[in-house]
Amino acid sequence: MKAEIITIGTEILIGSILNTNGPYLSQKLTDAGYDVEYHASVRDKYEAIRDAIETALTRSDVIFLCGGLGPTQDDMTKQALAHALDLPLIFDEKQWDYIRNVSMSFSKNITENNKRQAEFPEGAVVIPNPKGTAPGCMLNYEGKQFFMLPGPPREFEPMADDIAANYLNPVHGKNFITSLRLVNIGESKCESMFREAKIETENVEINTFAKTGEVEIKVIAHAEDEAEAEIIEKEYVEALRALRELFSEYIYGDGERDVFETLVDCLAEEKFTISFAESVTGGNMAHMITSVAGASNVLHESYITYSDEVKEKLLCVNPDTISKDTVVSEAVASEMSLGLFEKTKSTYCVATTGEAGPESATGKDVGTVIYSIRKDGEEVLRESRMYKDDRTTIQYRSSKYILARILLHELGEAHGRE
Amino acid sequence: MKAEIITIGTEILIGSILNTNGPYLSQKLTDAGYDVEYHASVRDKYEAIRDAIETALTRSDVIFLCGGLGPTQDDMTKQALAHALDLPLIFDEKQWDYIRNVSMSFSKNITENNKRQAEFPEGAVVIPNPKGTAPGCMLNYEGKQFFMLPGPPREFEPMADDIAANYLNPVHGKNFITSLRLVNIGESKCESMFREAKIETENVEINTFAKTGEVEIKVIAHAEDEAEAEIIEKEYVEALRALRELFSEYIYGDGERDVFETLVDCLAEEKFTISFAESVTGGNMAHMITSVAGASNVLHESYITYSDEVKEKLLCVNPDTISKDTVVSEAVASEMSLGLFEKTKSTYCVATTGEAGPESATGKDVGTVIYSIRKDGEEVLRESRMYKDDRTTIQYRSSKYILARILLHELGEAHGRE
Repeated sequence: MKAEIITIGTEILIGSILNTNGPYLSQKLTDAGYDVEYHASVRDKYEAIRDAIETALTRSDVIFLCGGLGPTQDDMTKQALAHALDLPLIFDEKQWDYIRNVSMSFSKNITENNKRQAEFPEGAVVIPNPKGTAPGCMLNYEGKQFFMLPGPPREFEPMADDIAANYLNPVHGKNFITSLRLVNIGESKCESMFREAKIETENVEINTFAKTGEVEIKVIAHAEDEAEAEIIEKEYVEALRALRELFSEYIYGDGERDVFETLVDCLAEEKFTISFAESVTGGNMAHMITSVAGASNVLHESYITYSDEVKEKLLCVNPDTISKDTVVSEAVASEMSLGLFEKTKSTYCVATTGEAGPESATGKDVGTVIYSIRKDGEEVLRESRMYKDDRTTIQYRSSKYILARILLHELGEAHGRE
Repeated sequence: MKAEIITIGTEILIGSILNTNGPYLSQKLTDAGYDVEYHASVRDKYEAIRDAIETALTRSDVIFLCGGLGPTQDDMTKQALAHALDLPLIFDEKQWDYIRNVSMSFSKNITENNKRQAEFPEGAVVIPNPKGTAPGCMLNYEGKQFFMLPGPPREFEPMADDIAANYLNPVHGKNFITSLRLVNIGESKCESMFREAKIETENVEINTFAKTGEVEIKVIAHAEDEAEAEIIEKEYVEALRALRELFSEYIYGDGERDVFETLVDCLAEEKFTISFAESVTGGNMAHMITSVAGASNVLHESYITYSDEVKEKLLCVNPDTISKDTVVSEAVASEMSLGLFEKTKSTYCVATTGEAGPESATGKDVGTVIYSIRKDGEEVLRESRMYKDDRTTIQYRSSKYILARILLHELGEAHGRE
């Protein structure tokens, strides 16, 4: 089944925003066994949208139109689709009630303009948008399937999940798919390791996806019928087993839970707590933890100790250590995590110091990140690392790396406890 | 001049990587006065590339082909272009020498396959690639201009800069472009306000772009020649003036600096400091500040005070206030910011409490965010707000909102000081 994703929005064409919806949906479709053959982006112009739809009709089976469902004059995706397919737009009273209610609950003003959002091409099935006022819809037309979704990613992503789970026509045969999630390994090392181990077979495809500070290995197989499925499943299970063995020290999970969620789960299960004393990471680690539901069970307090004075005042770092080793040193990191433990008595106490740039304020190289991790007061990990990135990326990558180290450490210990 | 960007690479279509080249080049082209009308992405398939080129020929003046210039069999962009234009591929001995030298300097093995990288369609001008083995090229063909660039962003971006500076045909006439950046207003209210005020003219185009917690207004005009430029510039300046007046309470800047950068600049200029006591925002505000270069001048210390006990211990919140008003209350927020001021003496002391969900731990509605802002110890702003979002978005939007309130307050005061 050939799929095409058409993104509508002048802001994409002038480079004002990154198109993250395309890749998000592409992954979902690939997982569902579809072949995404085309991405196209056009401006908020009626003719451009209509032409893109007409081209898609000649070459694709399933066509997604993303964006241009807002209430304003330059939102005209539905109008263009209705015209391209020669269908009338029908005003849906029930949807209009819904939009008014949603707008009120978001404390947004509703205007006559919003009525456009309650119009749909004749025959369309409305797809609810739990995060905004623009509903999506599905339309079957001469053997083709059309979907329309709103552009803002926070509305788009849950709807793409919904469509993948509930609206797509099933691809015939049987699909096998598993994602393994790895940290603290690069994509290219990962790829050369599994290629060398010759784990891929004719029927079992292995793809790697680099995400910031993380690699995903996707294992995919497709069987045309039951008989083939039996043979292929064996190959598939064997490939998975081999991959899990090969990457045992890097794999932290195989589901939807990310590093942060998995870490919070792990700590909560053992009734452990965690606190941070962040200098170079500037609150990023604490924030990664507090963004997880249930974080309040494991994080009660955390500190951003940016200046030398605050490190001394709050964490009892010895001023002599700072003058002797500079503030960007393993000795200071270690004293910071110790001071943090004395103050908080948290199970895990994590301290960072370093130089995020763009200029070095300390004489140490920009990109230096030093961390110290204590468990029950004992230092279990300490390391100095170097990142060749910009400020934000240094903070993000090092924060994720350190949290991943804690997770892998904890998984190792949990394994020992079993 | 209509520009089209065709990206070649199966990894884009299956959602394995984000396409950052498209937006990068789009910005360069927009700034140069080009109209980027189409983005298209296709797999590493000969026919798909050729079809995309043929479509582009019918609608665009300048066509960029990005990716598929590598040495392997699935790199066939040049072959597809040569075929689409009916031109032979010519082996270039000089480029072959260059590629061999570059490969050696990168310690890469060179194979017979790499010879493909020294072939170019007849008449092409080679564009050097300082970061890799795949040279780019430019080709003029029947009034159209073609560019081919390699896919990896670290090779692509410097070459895109080079093309924008040295190879593009100049757009005749003169371009005017300004971005106004607004906070604490929705896109749809923003649009209806300037439409009502009838600020847009035939020559001056106004676009709004919604970003999370922010709106950008882009004002664009184009004059064909000097005489027209004189007239249009007047209209353009008048439209800008009217927009600045209409949105004076929302505009925080007009350049590349975002809310966080502008706030850090503002505070640093006055030698002000800022500290946070974050509960519901979980470190997000502090992190937004520390992600800005130079943050260490304005933020020395900051706290994440998640549990009731820590609010009492660290910020001297009265336990009676918590039992009387609950922890999610304006009274507690106000005591938190006061305790924070006593502790840090920072110019701005900002405290948050609330309920980020997904379940309510306090009985207050999920999405409640209460903040208190003190300047020199005096409470200048306090507010209780409601967000209908998921946990991460509640944290992000409320953090940005509160920082924007501080910025607008400070800009107001700075205006008063002038």
